[in-house]
Amino acid sequence: MLGLWLEDLKLSLKDDLPRPARPGEALVKVRLSGICGTDLELARGYYPYTGVIGHEFVGEVAEAAEADWIGRRVVGEINAACGECEQCRNGRPTHCERRTVLGIVGRDGVHAEYATLPLANLHPVPDSVPDEAAVFVEPLAAALEIQQQVHIQPTDRVLLVGAGRLGQLIAQTLNLTGCDLRVVARHPRQKELLTSRRIRLIEEQEILPGRWDVVVEATGSPSGFDLARKALRPRGTLVLKSTYRGEMTLNLSPFVVDEITVVGSRCGPFEPALRLLERREVDPTPLIARRYPLAQALEAMEAAGRSGMLKVLLEP
Amino acid sequence: MLGLWLEDLKLSLKDDLPRPARPGEALVKVRLSGICGTDLELARGYYPYTGVIGHEFVGEVAEAAEADWIGRRVVGEINAACGECEQCRNGRPTHCERRTVLGIVGRDGVHAEYATLPLANLHPVPDSVPDEAAVFVEPLAAALEIQQQVHIQPTDRVLLVGAGRLGQLIAQTLNLTGCDLRVVARHPRQKELLTSRRIRLIEEQEILPGRWDVVVEATGSPSGFDLARKALRPRGTLVLKSTYRGEMTLNLSPFVVDEITVVGSRCGPFEPALRLLERREVDPTPLIARRYPLAQALEAMEAAGRSGMLKVLLEP
Repeated sequence: MLGLWLEDLKLSLKDDLPRPARPGEALVKVRLSGICGTDLELARGYYPYTGVIGHEFVGEVAEAAEADWIGRRVVGEINAACGECEQCRNGRPTHCERRTVLGIVGRDGVHAEYATLPLANLHPVPDSVPDEAAVFVEPLAAALEIQQQVHIQPTDRVLLVGAGRLGQLIAQTLNLTGCDLRVVARHPRQKELLTSRRIRLIEEQEILPGRWDVVVEATGSPSGFDLARKALRPRGTLVLKSTYRGEMTLNLSPFVVDEITVVGSRCGPFEPALRLLERREVDPTPLIARRYPLAQALEAMEAAGRSGMLKVLLEP
Repeated sequence: MLGLWLEDLKLSLKDDLPRPARPGEALVKVRLSGICGTDLELARGYYPYTGVIGHEFVGEVAEAAEADWIGRRVVGEINAACGECEQCRNGRPTHCERRTVLGIVGRDGVHAEYATLPLANLHPVPDSVPDEAAVFVEPLAAALEIQQQVHIQPTDRVLLVGAGRLGQLIAQTLNLTGCDLRVVARHPRQKELLTSRRIRLIEEQEILPGRWDVVVEATGSPSGFDLARKALRPRGTLVLKSTYRGEMTLNLSPFVVDEITVVGSRCGPFEPALRLLERREVDPTPLIARRYPLAQALEAMEAAGRSGMLKVLLEP
């Protein structure tokens, strides 16, 4: 089997990988996979991992214990949970203490011809949602995790810092709340995409400090964090929605004096993401910048790493 | 007038201070004042300030525009707000953008014979609450700010790290919620006080990591922060309830991966603090370690700075 393999911080395309098999799990034939910032970070050593990378996908069930799943077009939640630990028993399966995570922790990912996941992780894709939209369900769910954690009021003044791959999806979903949203975008293409959806931009120097009810940090950079922090009003909420590399030096006093709430935000709910795609309230497809055959995955990863590059897809 | 003066990081006892006067404000004769960690931090340069320090007090109204206030025993909220800025207009007067803060920002404090505050800041003290309890209303209100900001459920497993002056009051108020509370205390006297109220202690090495729903950090130290962070379960809430000096180096990734909420917490509501004292649900008086005449304020500050020292009071 062909797959994009990471080992000792080195990526390689292997064509002799065994087809993955895990007892009781479904085998999924990947139709499309998407390259995410976390894939790039893994290759840079953000977290030690050896195996096939990739966790955003749409595929087709090739083998499953329950016959009626076979042939279904599916997307899949990336955290495979034990169902028994304290986190699972308390309704937090994405935080399972013994979890494996597709293409991230102890489980081969989807930049390959096949991958496996428990049936419980799979969600059928409605016929009206094309592969090119379905492949975005995982990051779209991650965007929705913000509203799952933080009550965004329609009257809120909300600032989104960062308009890359994930930022674009966050902008689209936040915009649906009716809140007064402004987005800090760096690259012309990012700005174009937002403007085409009538999402309002703001230049960094126009941002009044201490005035925003909710600020979403989606750059992962210390300068983005700093900008986000300063924009927030007293008792405001700062949502951290990115992968942070290394350490940051912070003065915690202003967080206490201004009674700031900081919320870390990771994986989100798939069902509402699928609903929004089906209703066409969100359209991720203009985010697709490039599409490569899986055999050119190394070139694809390189392209995805370029500044301002939006979504790069792989086709096995 | 006698008062404890801070200037250029040097404390001195001055006996030639003018009696404070601010148009439209009440003049309060201080009966008792309490030395707080923030007083000690100010003297160490946490924040630039020149003037009389001190913000915890109980006093008696000596002069006021409304005659029926004169002679009343009062406590006072420390933030004097403008009533007009965006924060004030949105119901956040403790975050007023033009605020002065008693003994902390642009307003002489209460380690003196007299201080002034707007009438709107004053709260009459019920007769049944003695001066020795009323002098704790300000820090008790700060403790209650936790429940004002965070919904503590009776089923929550709550860890309090730090059992000093403020920590003791936090322990008493958290205990009233019925939550499963454990407190990390360092000094024998701190432990004794908690145990005497049937508040349960826990040793650092007994704390299971990743198991606590809410953790309150009340030490202000990097090691306390670290302990608090590690104790927290995924999606738990970390309350920062201390003065943090200087910068701290943090890896933000675990906050995102575990979807932690961090809440900075400062000044709180006076009315419920007075109610709890009146109902004797909280008893701060065993916290009083020493009592000095104001003329010995320098010795009192030195005593208050000793490790493990609980509340030191000044009597003008």
